[in-house]
Amino acid sequence: MKLICSDLEGVFVPEIWVNVAEKTGIEELKLTTREISDYDVLMTKRLSVLDKHGLKLKDITDIISTIELLEGALEALNWIRERAQIIILSDTFEEFARPLMKKLNYPALLCHSLLIDSEGRIADYKLRQANQKKHAIKAFKSLNYTTIAFGDSYNDTAMIKEADYGFFFRPPDNVIREFPEVEVTHTYDELREKLKSLL
Amino acid sequence: MKLICSDLEGVFVPEIWVNVAEKTGIEELKLTTREISDYDVLMTKRLSVLDKHGLKLKDITDIISTIELLEGALEALNWIRERAQIIILSDTFEEFARPLMKKLNYPALLCHSLLIDSEGRIADYKLRQANQKKHAIKAFKSLNYTTIAFGDSYNDTAMIKEADYGFFFRPPDNVIREFPEVEVTHTYDELREKLKSLL
Repeated sequence: MKLICSDLEGVFVPEIWVNVAEKTGIEELKLTTREISDYDVLMTKRLSVLDKHGLKLKDITDIISTIELLEGALEALNWIRERAQIIILSDTFEEFARPLMKKLNYPALLCHSLLIDSEGRIADYKLRQANQKKHAIKAFKSLNYTTIAFGDSYNDTAMIKEADYGFFFRPPDNVIREFPEVEVTHTYDELREKLKSLL
Repeated sequence: MKLICSDLEGVFVPEIWVNVAEKTGIEELKLTTREISDYDVLMTKRLSVLDKHGLKLKDITDIISTIELLEGALEALNWIRERAQIIILSDTFEEFARPLMKKLNYPALLCHSLLIDSEGRIADYKLRQANQKKHAIKAFKSLNYTTIAFGDSYNDTAMIKEADYGFFFRPPDNVIREFPEVEVTHTYDELREKLKSLL
């Protein structure tokens, strides 16, 4: 049996932090795993920036609620869910993702979580597991699934390589250059064709 | 982080085979894991009965499409999906489950699959993995999830015991008697209260 695992940001929804940066006007929040591949370094910086500006969880989730899905994303995801099982593997946090998962009709999501203090401040973040996307693929393989994985960026490459079938969806040029051996899809039509050939 | 795993039949949808038996009028199809705890024995019998009556996959899925969800099931599942991640672990088959998963808005489902021949006859079934519900709980624990599991019958007991928190939902009396150590919930309100206390 086949199981599809996909990234979230850059695949079905825009980069959350980039949008938060734009809507708050805070430049330092625009950095993503596309620019800083070490996720721990990136997240520590992000939380210190939020603190410096006095932004609490609710301020951020209010902003995230206004983010639109990528154009065609809901239709593409619905198409997949009518045909196969998909589980989204993301390095975002449950608390941030929820407003967007609602817009996607709650596909299953394996990600990380935040620690919120009594005043609603984001006190810390808790990575459920280092390299969780790769571990999830291994776990699904141990359940006798043939795994299909796609995503757009650095933090997807281990999952893409671990999966039985892995490819990029809309990666930036630097990622394409760094991983020339990984197949690339660009549009939801291409994604559907690729998945049709694999399912 | 918490992850909920639940059974499907008897929890959110009626027993599929019982309904197929009623709608076809074939008594022998009414047996379930409630009566025959060895799933392989049960399934081999079911497929031979279908063959004897000349019933193909489409005949069965047409019937399954007419099955209604259990009353309150959709609301209960929506309530869960707004608050937590849930993955349904079922010993049914992807092909049979699809019409009912559509009615539930496609929650993630890990189950088994059928082998269909060129004439649409169900030639065989393929258990993805023996004791798959228990293995899935172990896999999610290996991903650092604290697991919560519930179901109604024999084939849920290994998953319920393997999970960090496990309980029954609407089990028949014989299952309650055989597993007196497992907590029991009866209504969706009780289920919600139980989950609230665990999340």
